[in-house]
Amino acid sequence: MSKSIEIICVGTELLIGKTMNTNGQWLAKCATTLGLKVHRITTVEDDIDEISNALQEALQRNPRFIISTGGLGPTFDDRTLEGVAKALGVELKVHDKALKIVEDKYREYVEEGRMEKAELTPYRVKMAKLPEGAKPLFNSVGTAPGVIIEHEGVTIIALPGVPSEMEAIFEDSVAPLLKEAAGNVVFFEASLDATGIMESEVAPLIDQTMRDNPYVYIKSHPKGSEKFPRIELHLSTTAEEPETAKNRIGKVIIQISEMVQTKGGKIKVFKAKS
Amino acid sequence: MSKSIEIICVGTELLIGKTMNTNGQWLAKCATTLGLKVHRITTVEDDIDEISNALQEALQRNPRFIISTGGLGPTFDDRTLEGVAKALGVELKVHDKALKIVEDKYREYVEEGRMEKAELTPYRVKMAKLPEGAKPLFNSVGTAPGVIIEHEGVTIIALPGVPSEMEAIFEDSVAPLLKEAAGNVVFFEASLDATGIMESEVAPLIDQTMRDNPYVYIKSHPKGSEKFPRIELHLSTTAEEPETAKNRIGKVIIQISEMVQTKGGKIKVFKAKS
Repeated sequence: MSKSIEIICVGTELLIGKTMNTNGQWLAKCATTLGLKVHRITTVEDDIDEISNALQEALQRNPRFIISTGGLGPTFDDRTLEGVAKALGVELKVHDKALKIVEDKYREYVEEGRMEKAELTPYRVKMAKLPEGAKPLFNSVGTAPGVIIEHEGVTIIALPGVPSEMEAIFEDSVAPLLKEAAGNVVFFEASLDATGIMESEVAPLIDQTMRDNPYVYIKSHPKGSEKFPRIELHLSTTAEEPETAKNRIGKVIIQISEMVQTKGGKIKVFKAKS
Repeated sequence: MSKSIEIICVGTELLIGKTMNTNGQWLAKCATTLGLKVHRITTVEDDIDEISNALQEALQRNPRFIISTGGLGPTFDDRTLEGVAKALGVELKVHDKALKIVEDKYREYVEEGRMEKAELTPYRVKMAKLPEGAKPLFNSVGTAPGVIIEHEGVTIIALPGVPSEMEAIFEDSVAPLLKEAAGNVVFFEASLDATGIMESEVAPLIDQTMRDNPYVYIKSHPKGSEKFPRIELHLSTTAEEPETAKNRIGKVIIQISEMVQTKGGKIKVFKAKS
């Protein structure tokens, strides 16, 4: 079974550069840590056709999961569910359970004195209109429920764009599904700091080390200033056993450190974690 | 002529969530401010097929520009130019001018005492291998030149992933092209802070205001804590004259402020700039 995942970030604020796409990074990190492979992150504007096209394209690549973030709220430009419905060729319908979630939330707000009336205006009912076949995911932080729908072996999950709401629904309802799909897999990573050596000198050393250690991915990131250059070497691996992952990374740390030192550079390990 | 642009961010570090995609946001903000419309941001891993597919898909949507960032350096996983060559069906060849740029840089490093030998190893020559028909863009900060290539009316630009290098090449060589393509267009935005009102209550007010002001885009962003909710209303418009843009935004600020106040909420203007 494929263990890959695609992320679709919906929001015009991301395309005009107003907002940093922290949600994309957060989801990518969580999915990777849970053992899945993030295949692509696509950012589109608040437009039904754009959302629908991005989803259809992702479906064609046949990942195990597609997670979207953004576009579930009450305003006119919250269009993710319309986009999902269009992509799947289904209708949007008020979902009883979703409506109850929304209704209960507003009743709670009234009880807390945050608003006067809990009436279900069309803008509030909108958040409970799900694509046919979809189910709501409880949102412990905000109003709009998340949405999950199965389509030809792909699990599509739509999360809100407000980070705290997205994170809460992910942790409550999505992480367990990803963990189950990933099986007993751990992601392990470490970062080394190489100084006194240029990236073009490190390049052949990385090549050699990766040939000798095919399960470890090594990527160099030039950091520091022009006067004090340093290169971060990021090592990562995915394995079924934590011990295997650690042994692989440990072996690479030793090999690449020796090679860099032979070339007159210095290596410092500054982070290692699973 | 289309004034749209697509951004392709290349880097496995983005897909494992190790690195925040600040380059995507920076490019999106610059392109928007220069008057272009960013249509999509696609993030793919360091893989020739992935890069090639993303580029071909973007080409099919026929934007005026496609800008990529990442994957131009000397290491094995810097594969953007191979991906571009594959997508366009051309070969990679050492480009004389690009080679001279790379060579001069290393000679400079030797003169500065940062390295001993300026020899052109295969890893360094790699940075001067461009897709046929492409030209290098001078990199005032680092070693790898940017790359520009015209393809059936679309200008494809590949920039490095190191932020300072990407920004330098963009400002030196890319911004003038975007500005010319955009013509006399200004992007103007303002942010308002709405308190004492819920997003679902603001939703119909936004609808009404946007119907009355079709050239202004209004988006609500729930901010603040659960106890002290506030909604940021972000207004933006693109116009040929700064005065027109400012008048449009000014009119919307007045209308939406009055409407929010009528519903018992409060409005504060906290940012307005072009």
